[in-house]
Amino acid sequence: MKRLEQQLQFIVEIDKLKTVYRQTYLIDGSRKENSAEHSWHLAIMVVILSDYAREGELDIGRVMQMVLIHDLVEIDAGDTIVYDTRRRREKKILETEAAERIFNLLPGDQAGPMRALWDEFENDQTPEARFARALDRVQPILHNYHTGGLAWREYGITASQVLKRNRHVEEGSPELWVFVKDLVSRAVEKGYLSE
Amino acid sequence: MKRLEQQLQFIVEIDKLKTVYRQTYLIDGSRKENSAEHSWHLAIMVVILSDYAREGELDIGRVMQMVLIHDLVEIDAGDTIVYDTRRRREKKILETEAAERIFNLLPGDQAGPMRALWDEFENDQTPEARFARALDRVQPILHNYHTGGLAWREYGITASQVLKRNRHVEEGSPELWVFVKDLVSRAVEKGYLSE
Repeated sequence: MKRLEQQLQFIVEIDKLKTVYRQTYLIDGSRKENSAEHSWHLAIMVVILSDYAREGELDIGRVMQMVLIHDLVEIDAGDTIVYDTRRRREKKILETEAAERIFNLLPGDQAGPMRALWDEFENDQTPEARFARALDRVQPILHNYHTGGLAWREYGITASQVLKRNRHVEEGSPELWVFVKDLVSRAVEKGYLSE
Repeated sequence: MKRLEQQLQFIVEIDKLKTVYRQTYLIDGSRKENSAEHSWHLAIMVVILSDYAREGELDIGRVMQMVLIHDLVEIDAGDTIVYDTRRRREKKILETEAAERIFNLLPGDQAGPMRALWDEFENDQTPEARFARALDRVQPILHNYHTGGLAWREYGITASQVLKRNRHVEEGSPELWVFVKDLVSRAVEKGYLSE
C-alpha cells in the first residue's frame, strides 16, 4: 500500500491548485479563473486544435499531460502576470523549488518523468512544448476578447504588449498566431484594448 | 477559417463547465468543487494510477480524453448527486440532448469521435470506460474523507450507501476498491460517516 499512499498524497496535494487564481476572468465575467480549470481547458484545446501545431504529428498524449501539470508549481509559487518582467525572474527560482517538492511526493519512477515533463514545458525545446506554450497563451487572449477585455483593462495592457509578449505563439502554431493577431486588431477596434 | 471558428465556438462554450458546481467540497473545505476542475483532477489521476486498472494495458490517452469531456453535458443538464436515484433517470434524457447540442458545435469529423467518447463513458462497456468511471467515484470519496465527511454529513449519506453506490469501482480497479472500502471503514471510525 506504500506506493498507493504516496500517489494519493500527491493527488490530495494538487487539489490546492483549484485555489490559485489567475488574472484572467471566466468568459461570463463572473470571477477570475483558477489554474486547475485553466489546465483542464488547455487539455481539451490540445485535442481539438492539434492540427494547427507547426511541427506535424505530435505526441498528443504527452502534450495533454504537459498542460495538465504545467501550473502545479503555482501551489507554492503563485500566479504571476505574464506582463510583469521583473517578478518573472524571481518566480523562476520559486517555481523550481516548488517542482522539487511537489513532484517528489510521487514514487520515484513517477516523480522523474513528471518532473521531466514540467522541465520540457519550461525549456520550450520540443515541438510538444512549443505547441503547449502556444495554447497556454491563446486561451487567456480568447478569454480577454470574449469578456470585452476585462483583465486587459484592469491591468492597463496595450495591443503592442499583447503582440510582443505572445509572439512565440507563432513558434508553436503559425495559424493560431494569425488568429491571435486578427483578434487583437478586432479588440482594438472594439475598444477592448488600447493601441 | 470556418473550421477554426467552429472549434473556437466549442472552446468558448465549454468554459461554462467552470460554473457548474458539484456536491463535493475542495479538500480545504473552502467551497464546493466545479466540474471543470474535477475533470482536471481526474485526468491527472488517470496518469498516476493507471497501474491499478483491472484490465492491464489501457489506452491512457483515450481515458484522459474521456474524463476531460465526461461532464460537459452538465453545462445544460447540471450536476446531480449520485445518491438521488429518481433524478438520475430524468438526467439521462437531459444529458443526451446536451451531448447532441454541445459536441455538434465542433466540425463533423471531431464531433463524431468526441460524442463516441462520451457514449463510451456512459455505456461503461470498455476497460477504458470502466477505469474512468472508477476514478470518477474514487475522487469525491477521497475529498469527502479529507474534509471530515463534509458533503456526506450535509446530505446525510451512510457508509452502506457509499459502498452500494460505488461498488462498480471494483470493475474498473480491484485495488482501488479495496482502498475505498478501507477508507469508508476509517471514515466511520472517525465519525465522518454514519453506519
